Amino acid sequence: MNEHVDLKRRYLLAGTAAATGLIASGIRVHAQDNPLPASVDWKDPEAMIVHSNNTLETRRDAFGTSLITPEDRLYIRNNVSPPDASILDDRDAWEVAIEGVAEPRTLTVGELKTMGVDTVTMVLQCSGNGRAYFEHEPSGTPWQVGASGNVMWTGVPLRKVVEALGGAADGAAYVTGTGGETIPEGLEANDVLVERSVPVDVLDTILLAWDLNGEPISLAHGGPLRMIVPGFTGVNNVKYVKTVALTAEESPAAIQQTRYRLQPVGESGGPEHPSVWQMNVKSFVTAPLESASAGMVQVTGVAFGGINAVDSVEVSVDGGETWEAAEFIGPDMGRYAWRTFALSAELAAGTHMIVSRATDSEGNVQPEEFEPNDPGYNHNGWRAHGVEVTVG
Amino acid sequence: MNEHVDLKRRYLLAGTAAATGLIASGIRVHAQDNPLPASVDWKDPEAMIVHSNNTLETRRDAFGTSLITPEDRLYIRNNVSPPDASILDDRDAWEVAIEGVAEPRTLTVGELKTMGVDTVTMVLQCSGNGRAYFEHEPSGTPWQVGASGNVMWTGVPLRKVVEALGGAADGAAYVTGTGGETIPEGLEANDVLVERSVPVDVLDTILLAWDLNGEPISLAHGGPLRMIVPGFTGVNNVKYVKTVALTAEESPAAIQQTRYRLQPVGESGGPEHPSVWQMNVKSFVTAPLESASAGMVQVTGVAFGGINAVDSVEVSVDGGETWEAAEFIGPDMGRYAWRTFALSAELAAGTHMIVSRATDSEGNVQPEEFEPNDPGYNHNGWRAHGVEVTVG
Repeated sequence: MNEHVDLKRRYLLAGTAAATGLIASGIRVHAQDNPLPASVDWKDPEAMIVHSNNTLETRRDAFGTSLITPEDRLYIRNNVSPPDASILDDRDAWEVAIEGVAEPRTLTVGELKTMGVDTVTMVLQCSGNGRAYFEHEPSGTPWQVGASGNVMWTGVPLRKVVEALGGAADGAAYVTGTGGETIPEGLEANDVLVERSVPVDVLDTILLAWDLNGEPISLAHGGPLRMIVPGFTGVNNVKYVKTVALTAEESPAAIQQTRYRLQPVGESGGPEHPSVWQMNVKSFVTAPLESASAGMVQVTGVAFGGINAVDSVEVSVDGGETWEAAEFIGPDMGRYAWRTFALSAELAAGTHMIVSRATDSEGNVQPEEFEPNDPGYNHNGWRAHGVEVTVG
Repeated sequence: MNEHVDLKRRYLLAGTAAATGLIASGIRVHAQDNPLPASVDWKDPEAMIVHSNNTLETRRDAFGTSLITPEDRLYIRNNVSPPDASILDDRDAWEVAIEGVAEPRTLTVGELKTMGVDTVTMVLQCSGNGRAYFEHEPSGTPWQVGASGNVMWTGVPLRKVVEALGGAADGAAYVTGTGGETIPEGLEANDVLVERSVPVDVLDTILLAWDLNGEPISLAHGGPLRMIVPGFTGVNNVKYVKTVALTAEESPAAIQQTRYRLQPVGESGGPEHPSVWQMNVKSFVTAPLESASAGMVQVTGVAFGGINAVDSVEVSVDGGETWEAAEFIGPDMGRYAWRTFALSAELAAGTHMIVSRATDSEGNVQPEEFEPNDPGYNHNGWRAHGVEVTVG
């Protein structure tokens, strides 16, 4: 291995090293009890599974009934090490270049804050959430359900910024965000750069956000400024965003061209394969997870539609033989948010496989099995996400 | 002063001792910088004004854009010292007696959790929030705007519990909740007891709640079980609830009979005066609060309807001479929740009095001035809640 590759390997954070005990057939996966990384020692240690310094997921039993995932329980996945924390010293001074508009300009966060403000509640979910449930054992972090959370972002609508700068230049087909991570010397920028392009038709939903759950965004989650693309997987929500460009083409960065592609198992990713963009409909049970007392039980979980609103969810306590409609409880926080569901079920002593199956507003239903892709993205098959509960 | 009275005075926590610098004309009130009490040292010290060990409010600049007030920023007001923290050692073992039903029973929290589950987002607000803005200087904690928050409660609907126990007994006119605080020897129970009655016609909205913002309720906020009455002021949401009774009469406790009454200034409270129950429509600005740069500014705040949904809010940057409709931003979390509002305003250099005025779904509008009551409850006058901002 030459020095270049070795450096790259160390720089691009591997997520798999810390995970142990993967059972490919699904249901149960344990990561070893790693301590919290020093950089995020403010996370709730009881709530997190630490796969590596830059890959932490929320334990399934830590979602509780909250409709909002607190920042100290929210998963972390960084493709590249974050910039130095000093970028948060003066948040309002952070600069973002707006390109591909009639009057390109660099704006500070302080300026953005005067231009408009909106809040969106949305599921933030890693593209690889559920990877542990693929049977072909893809490389990458074996996320179970907890590389996801329901969070609130506050910032300026990108639409207002584009309008203030004279509107989009001709030929804009993508919104391309560039992250502020440092490119180490000796590496090709396009190999490392976190630069993602999403179709321009979602421009009106994008926020340039400075607050997460009402407080300034932490470094781990992309502060001082993050490009938020509701309904799109985590990687498309570019952290420390330093350039937002309306572009005719997708970014040439590897993270856009060859990574985060849905190629068949055994193939390498490339522009000919679909990009990992919009999320699909999904749900999972959050209680009970292991055991319960015989009799009446409240089965609870979360459900979301991804790019669409979630419409309904059914629960089965017999592994999918029979289904009952669950009720959504608590407020509907909008199209991109998840909802909590509950079903009263009478459980007899024995073993029960509890599964849930959501339907979105377009009639898309979670499939029983999910067609695998090589890198292990977008898993929403209901059977693999089920839980086996011992009732006594 | 005899020993009885002295003990009572020490036991009933006074809220005024720590407050200094009250300016009766409104606008600015400073409490001295007291440290956080040891019992709630997990509160965010930057976010809180500490009036006393049992009266803490959220700073107006600490609400930010969050639609949910984190528990570590939520105000505290205890009428009586909480029970020993050991009551949280086994939360599911906490018992609540359900009375005034066909088949009265004592149920554990563990049993309640099997009977049903729902979540409500609501404004929790102390009856005396805004007391600092009354000109007659009522006794009691001089709350400004921060004895309020927007929080999520999860628990079992009381309706389901009552149904499971055979339904309400004949003649039920009130739901009466009794708190689990210890009554010290030498005191009359009815002088100290936290026992509140609310009209039975809101029974269907009541929750017996074990979670606050998705996590078990802290002792300070009423865990392990709190009776939640959406749209009613804080005192009606009985902490450590140990009895819930459907009763023909209101509680004989002083907190129901003579306190929390809306008597005219200078009079003592009694059953002939209206009880402090449903909250009224209200809003306040949260930014900018002191200064801003000339030019475009985003004026933000929160608005709620109390017992009703909030319908709209207007903002004036000239002390009420002219008004503009603000926009609600972020999700509508239901009838009892607050909404965040924003207005883009062009501010010239100088001093601006920024005020907001909300209207609820029934057409009730915040008044310019609020008719005072002796104890200083329910203030929702828009002028007194305004902020003076220096623009330069």
